[in-house]
Amino acid sequence: MNEYIRPDKFREECGVFGILSNNSHDVASLSYYALYALQHRGQESCGIAVNNEGDIDHHKAMGLVPEVFSEKILDELQGKAAIGHVRYSTTGASLLANAQPLVVKYKDGKMALAHNGNLVNASEIREKLEENGAIFQSTIDSEVMAYLISRYRGHNNSIEEAITEMMKEVKGSYALVILTPKKLLGIRDPLGIRPLCIGMLDDSYVLASESCALDAIGANFIRDVEPGEIVAVSEDGLVSIKTNLSKESKLCIFEHIYFARPDSFIDGASVYRARFEAGRLLAMENPVNADLVIGVPDSGITAALGYSEQSGIPYAQGFIKNRYVGRTFIQPDQGKREMSVRIKLNAMKNAVEGKRVIMVDDSIVRGTTSKRIVQLLRDAGATEVHLKISSPPVKWPCYFGIDTPSRQHLTAACHSVDEIREMIGADTLSYLSIDGLISTPIGSKSRFCKACFDGNYPMHVPAEGNKFSCDGLQKKC
Amino acid sequence: MNEYIRPDKFREECGVFGILSNNSHDVASLSYYALYALQHRGQESCGIAVNNEGDIDHHKAMGLVPEVFSEKILDELQGKAAIGHVRYSTTGASLLANAQPLVVKYKDGKMALAHNGNLVNASEIREKLEENGAIFQSTIDSEVMAYLISRYRGHNNSIEEAITEMMKEVKGSYALVILTPKKLLGIRDPLGIRPLCIGMLDDSYVLASESCALDAIGANFIRDVEPGEIVAVSEDGLVSIKTNLSKESKLCIFEHIYFARPDSFIDGASVYRARFEAGRLLAMENPVNADLVIGVPDSGITAALGYSEQSGIPYAQGFIKNRYVGRTFIQPDQGKREMSVRIKLNAMKNAVEGKRVIMVDDSIVRGTTSKRIVQLLRDAGATEVHLKISSPPVKWPCYFGIDTPSRQHLTAACHSVDEIREMIGADTLSYLSIDGLISTPIGSKSRFCKACFDGNYPMHVPAEGNKFSCDGLQKKC
Amino acid sequence: MNEYIRPDKFREECGVFGILSNNSHDVASLSYYALYALQHRGQESCGIAVNNEGDIDHHKAMGLVPEVFSEKILDELQGKAAIGHVRYSTTGASLLANAQPLVVKYKDGKMALAHNGNLVNASEIREKLEENGAIFQSTIDSEVMAYLISRYRGHNNSIEEAITEMMKEVKGSYALVILTPKKLLGIRDPLGIRPLCIGMLDDSYVLASESCALDAIGANFIRDVEPGEIVAVSEDGLVSIKTNLSKESKLCIFEHIYFARPDSFIDGASVYRARFEAGRLLAMENPVNADLVIGVPDSGITAALGYSEQSGIPYAQGFIKNRYVGRTFIQPDQGKREMSVRIKLNAMKNAVEGKRVIMVDDSIVRGTTSKRIVQLLRDAGATEVHLKISSPPVKWPCYFGIDTPSRQHLTAACHSVDEIREMIGADTLSYLSIDGLISTPIGSKSRFCKACFDGNYPMHVPAEGNKFSCDGLQKKC
Amino acid sequence: MNEYIRPDKFREECGVFGILSNNSHDVASLSYYALYALQHRGQESCGIAVNNEGDIDHHKAMGLVPEVFSEKILDELQGKAAIGHVRYSTTGASLLANAQPLVVKYKDGKMALAHNGNLVNASEIREKLEENGAIFQSTIDSEVMAYLISRYRGHNNSIEEAITEMMKEVKGSYALVILTPKKLLGIRDPLGIRPLCIGMLDDSYVLASESCALDAIGANFIRDVEPGEIVAVSEDGLVSIKTNLSKESKLCIFEHIYFARPDSFIDGASVYRARFEAGRLLAMENPVNADLVIGVPDSGITAALGYSEQSGIPYAQGFIKNRYVGRTFIQPDQGKREMSVRIKLNAMKNAVEGKRVIMVDDSIVRGTTSKRIVQLLRDAGATEVHLKISSPPVKWPCYFGIDTPSRQHLTAACHSVDEIREMIGADTLSYLSIDGLISTPIGSKSRFCKACFDGNYPMHVPAEGNKFSCDGLQKKC
Repeated sequence: MNEYIRPDKFREECGVFGILSNNSHDVASLSYYALYALQHRGQESCGIAVNNEGDIDHHKAMGLVPEVFSEKILDELQGKAAIGHVRYSTTGASLLANAQPLVVKYKDGKMALAHNGNLVNASEIREKLEENGAIFQSTIDSEVMAYLISRYRGHNNSIEEAITEMMKEVKGSYALVILTPKKLLGIRDPLGIRPLCIGMLDDSYVLASESCALDAIGANFIRDVEPGEIVAVSEDGLVSIKTNLSKESKLCIFEHIYFARPDSFIDGASVYRARFEAGRLLAMENPVNADLVIGVPDSGITAALGYSEQSGIPYAQGFIKNRYVGRTFIQPDQGKREMSVRIKLNAMKNAVEGKRVIMVDDSIVRGTTSKRIVQLLRDAGATEVHLKISSPPVKWPCYFGIDTPSRQHLTAACHSVDEIREMIGADTLSYLSIDGLISTPIGSKSRFCKACFDGNYPMHVPAEGNKFSCDGLQKKC
Repeated sequence: MNEYIRPDKFREECGVFGILSNNSHDVASLSYYALYALQHRGQESCGIAVNNEGDIDHHKAMGLVPEVFSEKILDELQGKAAIGHVRYSTTGASLLANAQPLVVKYKDGKMALAHNGNLVNASEIREKLEENGAIFQSTIDSEVMAYLISRYRGHNNSIEEAITEMMKEVKGSYALVILTPKKLLGIRDPLGIRPLCIGMLDDSYVLASESCALDAIGANFIRDVEPGEIVAVSEDGLVSIKTNLSKESKLCIFEHIYFARPDSFIDGASVYRARFEAGRLLAMENPVNADLVIGVPDSGITAALGYSEQSGIPYAQGFIKNRYVGRTFIQPDQGKREMSVRIKLNAMKNAVEGKRVIMVDDSIVRGTTSKRIVQLLRDAGATEVHLKISSPPVKWPCYFGIDTPSRQHLTAACHSVDEIREMIGADTLSYLSIDGLISTPIGSKSRFCKACFDGNYPMHVPAEGNKFSCDGLQKKC
Repeated sequence: MNEYIRPDKFREECGVFGILSNNSHDVASLSYYALYALQHRGQESCGIAVNNEGDIDHHKAMGLVPEVFSEKILDELQGKAAIGHVRYSTTGASLLANAQPLVVKYKDGKMALAHNGNLVNASEIREKLEENGAIFQSTIDSEVMAYLISRYRGHNNSIEEAITEMMKEVKGSYALVILTPKKLLGIRDPLGIRPLCIGMLDDSYVLASESCALDAIGANFIRDVEPGEIVAVSEDGLVSIKTNLSKESKLCIFEHIYFARPDSFIDGASVYRARFEAGRLLAMENPVNADLVIGVPDSGITAALGYSEQSGIPYAQGFIKNRYVGRTFIQPDQGKREMSVRIKLNAMKNAVEGKRVIMVDDSIVRGTTSKRIVQLLRDAGATEVHLKISSPPVKWPCYFGIDTPSRQHLTAACHSVDEIREMIGADTLSYLSIDGLISTPIGSKSRFCKACFDGNYPMHVPAEGNKFSCDGLQKKC
Repeated sequence: MNEYIRPDKFREECGVFGILSNNSHDVASLSYYALYALQHRGQESCGIAVNNEGDIDHHKAMGLVPEVFSEKILDELQGKAAIGHVRYSTTGASLLANAQPLVVKYKDGKMALAHNGNLVNASEIREKLEENGAIFQSTIDSEVMAYLISRYRGHNNSIEEAITEMMKEVKGSYALVILTPKKLLGIRDPLGIRPLCIGMLDDSYVLASESCALDAIGANFIRDVEPGEIVAVSEDGLVSIKTNLSKESKLCIFEHIYFARPDSFIDGASVYRARFEAGRLLAMENPVNADLVIGVPDSGITAALGYSEQSGIPYAQGFIKNRYVGRTFIQPDQGKREMSVRIKLNAMKNAVEGKRVIMVDDSIVRGTTSKRIVQLLRDAGATEVHLKISSPPVKWPCYFGIDTPSRQHLTAACHSVDEIREMIGADTLSYLSIDGLISTPIGSKSRFCKACFDGNYPMHVPAEGNKFSCDGLQKKC
């Protein structure tokens, strides 16, 4: 699971949810609990839009779900259908104007959109639309998609047809939920890069980025939305439109490594199982002699358990993590920078003192936090620290909805494993191989986008990543 | 001056401000003080947008100017030009989405707009734009105007030409300020229904709804923007474009009666003087024998002084008004409804006891508050209460930016003066005549829109006002 | 009336209120409206305590009455009796710990106290109590009085007897309301320096610092509490205990000059009438040729009307005051200090231009604001400005509950009237004489404490005021 | 570790911290981070008091540490010594008046106190003090202790002597830190029921409820304060006064079971180790055949790992817990009560499906939550659920600073283990034996208070616990 403040990790940008109820469900309240279960996918802003007998009301603001919504606000969001969104910004600055759902009026009435993903040709489309007089009030892709839908919608085009036309035009990743006066729609991009699944709560259809949101509200998992599929839910039930845009499935492998909650299932595979397997394979690929296996909370724990099982080396709780961090937490100032990890994470001295420790983490981005955590273990008396990463070295930025630093801040882009090991101060450092990694989501119906490891992007992307040179960046982190 | 909570008054909807500085003025801070001076024109939301070297930043929120802006926020709004807005909603529900300035990106870059007024053909234009694929995210007219400017702007059209085209298309009232990466623009509709004036602070040009905002920041009044005029301020100075759209001037007479601050000058006339004259004429038209003249705070005071001077009957402070009302003030519940006036206004018993009192107020809308105020005076021992209104009976709703109730709530629409007098419980009731009223803004360069009194709208308006019938509404207020 | 931000005025420290209801009055809600009517007596903190069937609940916080209390909070304050308090600090820093009412448990149960005034021997008593082991958690006098009452209360002493003993020991000014599980008590110091009056609302007794609070909730004024009197209200009605501590009445004359709301009556005299008379006498004592009389809002208005009537010179509105100042208002920084008056007050150019103006104000403390206001008038075109002060020069600090600066900041302490006139920049400056002033509260049952003018304190006070020397202070303000 | 919202657990009431710096440490900021590390000991209110050159300033409010303190507030708390407190109420309602530190002025100057624990004879002492005229403004024991210290302090008594006298008089548990203008004092009750330890940060002495707070700020652990010991820290160093009040050590065993953070060491024993051992012993005492061992997050995890090691049954992550719960989280309403556990905790279906599961938790209070968690596992497909509790059945309320429900809500008070098992719906249920439990904190220098299990209170307590009858309570939970 994603953590609230974890600057040295990739950051998921968004989670989406939708519900259309045929009986008296309180859709705003259910959206609240579902978004709360998706909070790890975005902690910056959130919002809910409801279809109130054809009119679409909404509330959105900066902050966590429990901060943004009060009972009074939920009570005012009456209706029989709703969509919701949690967000961490990728494109678009951190502005309220960029919070979602986006609610617009167009020639066919009102429409609300919530989007997880990132378009790579958004600027291009914006320019074309602007040439025709369009004005933009935010920097979010939802606004671009809303415009395109509006353009393609006409007396001869249904909403589904307009969405299909939009899908032909945009390039990138999108798990999209749309609320209209009559329908709830769910759309997944042709490569299925971002996840989206379907559930049922009594007779009501539900859409969510991850199945853990279904569990939270007691809905049953039905199936994943397929790449390139549009599902349209109305009072009459669910209709599936399979556009012929999809050639293959390219789910983002980082959903399994880090973003998704371990209790979720994505495209047929358990996230928990994928992480556990990653730990097992890591032990097979990179055995080392040690006394203990520990995981970096929270996302390294599952792989550590897998590593322990495979290696036979006992698992222990190596760290205790402070759970009370909030948005207003005051970071230590310069003079106390070494406190910044310690106030959030403490090593369990009694467990690690005098021991050779295998420390498992899910990934390394910049490496600065890893360095401090290794030091925590040494200060607590660990005699050896072997760092095992349950994914390959991250070398390329993501263009599909994940907040990655530019290449020069990706430690592995310009440093060998041994250089990184030295920077971090571990006795040994090993990564899981790419082949190992993509075998871990057992039973997955997807193949994967793993461009952050190998640079093989599933579509043309902006050139910055490619023209990058490592010259002069070989300094330590 | 408008009061914070005054449900029984017309409500002005907006105030606008703009500044472009050639030296180092802190434009956000000056906007803050100017908007604060215009606070009486709108207490619901406010915002400031600044041109930060070509990029346009902004902050807007629900609340009063001192509530919405902190020093930290003002510090972040760096730039050399700014526009600001205070708002009370007329069109558009009371939503944050409708707060202004509206900031948009279009083919020619960014643009911020702030609008005072109301378009009568906005829906019509929206529909036409929607037919071409436009999407709308608010219900404010600024969005319509931004769209039109965007459409008309092109490689061959300057921003001024695009604005002129927009002005040909929209119908209604607008005092509009626009901020672009290079310019500050001020526009007044062809009838000049809403006020807008020009000032200078050192070498910087300033635009404001009322001259009182110039005084607040120490700027000098230069002149009013003329009906149908566009003024474009840039680093090179001010350029005036006089469109040929203007046939005559039709300033809203209610600006003089109630909305504007008495220390403002509008179109060459002093608001204070206009109100004082209205009181004088009221005394000439409607003499009555009495011991004292008092005014209903705050807007009735000036006319009361004029009445006193003309009649020779001494002026006295008849009421004390509680100045601490804020947004969170708890209104008395049903059982204590009679307290609702008393907690805001108390009669000065010592002044009025045993006296025949002439009570001057600026207008009557529903009459409910007037009734309670008359009762306050009687409870304090006034032997007679003569109610003198320094404007004619309000019979028609406004379509040009004023929040008027629908006709059935305008007491004078269906009741004779004597019926109203009886409802209110005054001994006598007189109104100023229309002819008297429009003679009061001495030296004004405008003729006036006085449609709320006589139904002669200066342009075609929605039909509701006309088809209204008084049947069944002759009950008491 | 006191203004929210008016640094150049004396500041009243507190207002108190109490109610004991025999029927179903909502006492917390009534306290809310009454405190709101007393808000001019203290804007820093406020609180309400209720007797909830023998237990005493309370809520208090920093802020204005409408900011501190919500409907939810009022709903939770259930009971049949209540006291309330608004405060501006005199003794005691501006801390929440010093907010009132003070609620204590002592051997006889719970007790809540709210105090307006100041004890001059509080430190002395604190020391004595501390010698016996007492601990203090605030710096407010209420805590001292609560301790004394607790000490004197015993199996043989009623609460009234304990209060009488307390009154023998403390020296200073106090209008005090006390809530016990069975009673509501009101106490006024032997000189009656601070006001306190009794009202009735249906069958319920009410106590308040000023009668305007009675008016606000619809209660009838019964009488003032007498100097040295204890009134004890219980289910059985009101009992008066007249201690023999009172020799004479010495009401603070500044209540009439500035503190009290003009619609209040204190000790038999109308505040409005007193101010009006002060203006009349000022005109008699200090005639001058001029075209207009204007008052500085809000507290100078009434005297200006009196001056106008007596002199025959017409009264005019000279200023418009911005009503929206709140706690979070951002003061102009150094470079714009000259804006600080202008953003709150604007001269009515049309009224004063080319005119010889008599400007009436109630008092001068430091003179800095007066100087800026005179300048406002000159900038607006006044040809002469004659400043008339409706009270004598303030030369001595107050020790009885008013926040006065130390002597060196009292302009009149070390400067002649002509020196002050020159500093302020007025053409002439006159003050009302002491004899004139004390004749103005016509019908008052009190004589007055006027020590701030003549240094004749009604009891021994700390020596600082006396030993003060003016050497080196003759510089300009 | 304690959780933020965990209604079905015992609740620790308080954590304390103190620091006296001889060099330039920012004591308020260090207190902030230390209190943050102690946040699990109290989430209701918190406060910091600093010694600012002899004067004692403080700030306290309702809320979590990061909510209550801003950088601005910390900056204003200047000084060289500080104490801090986090609180969950036991005695005393949830009022701001009861927040700590308590700051008082008494005959010897100012003093601030922060207390963890509960006095059993507080009422008795209050009454006695009240007989002598004392008044109380809160219901916290700190106020009673401050009074006693003030009484015993005199020209012949040092602060240490006064504290010793106070210790003779009060009965109960207390880990107490006191700040005076010259000293920082730490006191532990004669039985050492609540923990308190000493650390050093550079040359500065530090006191804290748990060693995890020392780790957070980089201080080194020195030793625990001993039962009945007073440590007095001044510029000259640390002086220890060992009162002869202590006969034996009786640390609360629940500190090891649940309250303390597992990374803390208390009286020589590691909390982590104690919990791990409890799990091991639980496996020895109560073996069962199963496929998996899982722990209930967060406090059941460590014992589950011990159980797994001892039994050889693999450990797995059985649950994922939502980390974003905050104070404003909206609890599901009646109709969705079954969601209340599910939105915070989700079972890891992939791990438990088709498995016989041993679920380890630290304790059962009411049993309602346990019942829901067992159901979560069954819904996720567990074929058997064996509930193992790493402490004995809780049968008696605590009087020493822990918020326990009254006896009738302690499930084990009136039900047999088998009855509880049936209520909860587990296949088997076992508890750790008392003898087993108290052997777990290996190396502890304490014996333990285990009265909640066996009713053998270490001193006379109020009779309620004893006279309780189970008649009529044998219904299901």
